[in-house]
Amino acid sequence: MSTWYQENIRVQYKDTDQMGVVHHGNYVTWFEIGRTEWMRHKGMTYSQLENQRLLLPVMDVQLQYKLSAKYDDCVAVFTRVSKASPIRLEFEYEVRRIDEVAFAERGKTESLNPYGELLTKGSSTHMWVNSNWKPTKINKVAPEVYDIVKK
Amino acid sequence: MSTWYQENIRVQYKDTDQMGVVHHGNYVTWFEIGRTEWMRHKGMTYSQLENQRLLLPVMDVQLQYKLSAKYDDCVAVFTRVSKASPIRLEFEYEVRRIDEVAFAERGKTESLNPYGELLTKGSSTHMWVNSNWKPTKINKVAPEVYDIVKK
Amino acid sequence: MSTWYQENIRVQYKDTDQMGVVHHGNYVTWFEIGRTEWMRHKGMTYSQLENQRLLLPVMDVQLQYKLSAKYDDCVAVFTRVSKASPIRLEFEYEVRRIDEVAFAERGKTESLNPYGELLTKGSSTHMWVNSNWKPTKINKVAPEVYDIVKK
Amino acid sequence: MSTWYQENIRVQYKDTDQMGVVHHGNYVTWFEIGRTEWMRHKGMTYSQLENQRLLLPVMDVQLQYKLSAKYDDCVAVFTRVSKASPIRLEFEYEVRRIDEVAFAERGKTESLNPYGELLTKGSSTHMWVNSNWKPTKINKVAPEVYDIVKK
Repeated sequence: MSTWYQENIRVQYKDTDQMGVVHHGNYVTWFEIGRTEWMRHKGMTYSQLENQRLLLPVMDVQLQYKLSAKYDDCVAVFTRVSKASPIRLEFEYEVRRIDEVAFAERGKTESLNPYGELLTKGSSTHMWVNSNWKPTKINKVAPEVYDIVKK
Repeated sequence: MSTWYQENIRVQYKDTDQMGVVHHGNYVTWFEIGRTEWMRHKGMTYSQLENQRLLLPVMDVQLQYKLSAKYDDCVAVFTRVSKASPIRLEFEYEVRRIDEVAFAERGKTESLNPYGELLTKGSSTHMWVNSNWKPTKINKVAPEVYDIVKK
Repeated sequence: MSTWYQENIRVQYKDTDQMGVVHHGNYVTWFEIGRTEWMRHKGMTYSQLENQRLLLPVMDVQLQYKLSAKYDDCVAVFTRVSKASPIRLEFEYEVRRIDEVAFAERGKTESLNPYGELLTKGSSTHMWVNSNWKPTKINKVAPEVYDIVKK
Repeated sequence: MSTWYQENIRVQYKDTDQMGVVHHGNYVTWFEIGRTEWMRHKGMTYSQLENQRLLLPVMDVQLQYKLSAKYDDCVAVFTRVSKASPIRLEFEYEVRRIDEVAFAERGKTESLNPYGELLTKGSSTHMWVNSNWKPTKINKVAPEVYDIVKK
């Protein structure tokens, strides 16, 4: 399994709902931020993939909610690849509450173990397609990308 | 001035924030729903305009907040054209709280006077452009559309 | 298994992303609309539950994406209870593309079989808690609610 | 006039729409992030204000759109107070596209002049109220807060 990549996010007011916590729908977006920044950290951007006419649409998402994030909390999205084949890519996520010091000083880094208070876990599966949404073998059309994700 | 068109919206949980009211950002989206459904009511859809390679991007938006909408409220978005030239189009909006009976029975209709408790007023200005984002004279490229909006 | 309840939603412009389809995160919100309107159809509102100091937070969500919804599509969210115990409640969802006629004429009704083109399937699990977020047995504190959901 | 405070934001996929640009509604949220982080930079947080039972609801918002932000763009939200009285507070905003270097190296700082390509300008007016939404004179109930905003 690859190491975890940490991306920090400050909880915004608009993310809260009248229960006083972050609305559960926002975590899907946070997962997306997690894998986007994971890619950038690995040296490619999703934007570059799109320019190469490669898309990575979502096939499924699972979320398990443990504790609620609150307004102005410091959260870290930990992301890693859990499975990579030439046709599919799976990510795993943990969203954790961290303190202000860790928020300011750590982030945009890899770590062996996620830390902080676990809020939400999840995963997503994606499929490599071309710009006509036809399934594509990433090891054929962009081996350098496959080299990055399969590690 | 044209008559007002009424489109009803049920306030969703995710629209609320921890103040216990609808987050102010949602009204921009409600204005968009208002003008989209105004168009459909007039016999054209924004989707058809895009197929004709016509876009109507937003140049400015103003919003004035009077009272707050709450979770599960019935709101009506009243929309009308306030100004139409060959190159620009201005809409005016009123978002009002209405009761369950009006919500169920009225809606998708025109009326001379908006009714219900005024929550938010606003306006938006739009520009006609082609699919390359070049300004376009709507009375030249789509006179049938201009006929609809200038009334 | 209970019958399916159908709630119709028009796809908005802000729901799309630059792939030209509905961003996958929106389906979590559509599921929420589905179960909210299911409840209203059954004769209680989530708002009334909150007034009785009962909350139904989300424990997990699963989504499987089959086909993409597009701008201005007519979609139907089909919702039913898949499992109800005194402490938990599970919903099942199907989001399907329907035509303009079905959109205008059907909706806010129950049906034995979902119809239309399947876009996304999913489920969510919820837990009954009181206003202090302590787990609660719904058959004790609100037997009339349990009667509704267990059917 | 006070100096501008710069907060950087990476454009996310979910912020885009099928025109291939950031949906105009997102700028309202970006303004909110701008003023929230402005406050934190000044040594108080909106969260602390809420704990003191002070709220700062939005009375109006204006937005003028000049150019579009695109997916993965680096944008900077420049925020400053344009007017502060004991009962009201006005903010002014400029959202600008900046390059990757400025994005990585500048941010969370004050500057005399906003830089980068101007995308959207705007302003918002807010009113000081207590937790019962009654208007409040901030110089009486929290003079230390008034000292910060009136500069």
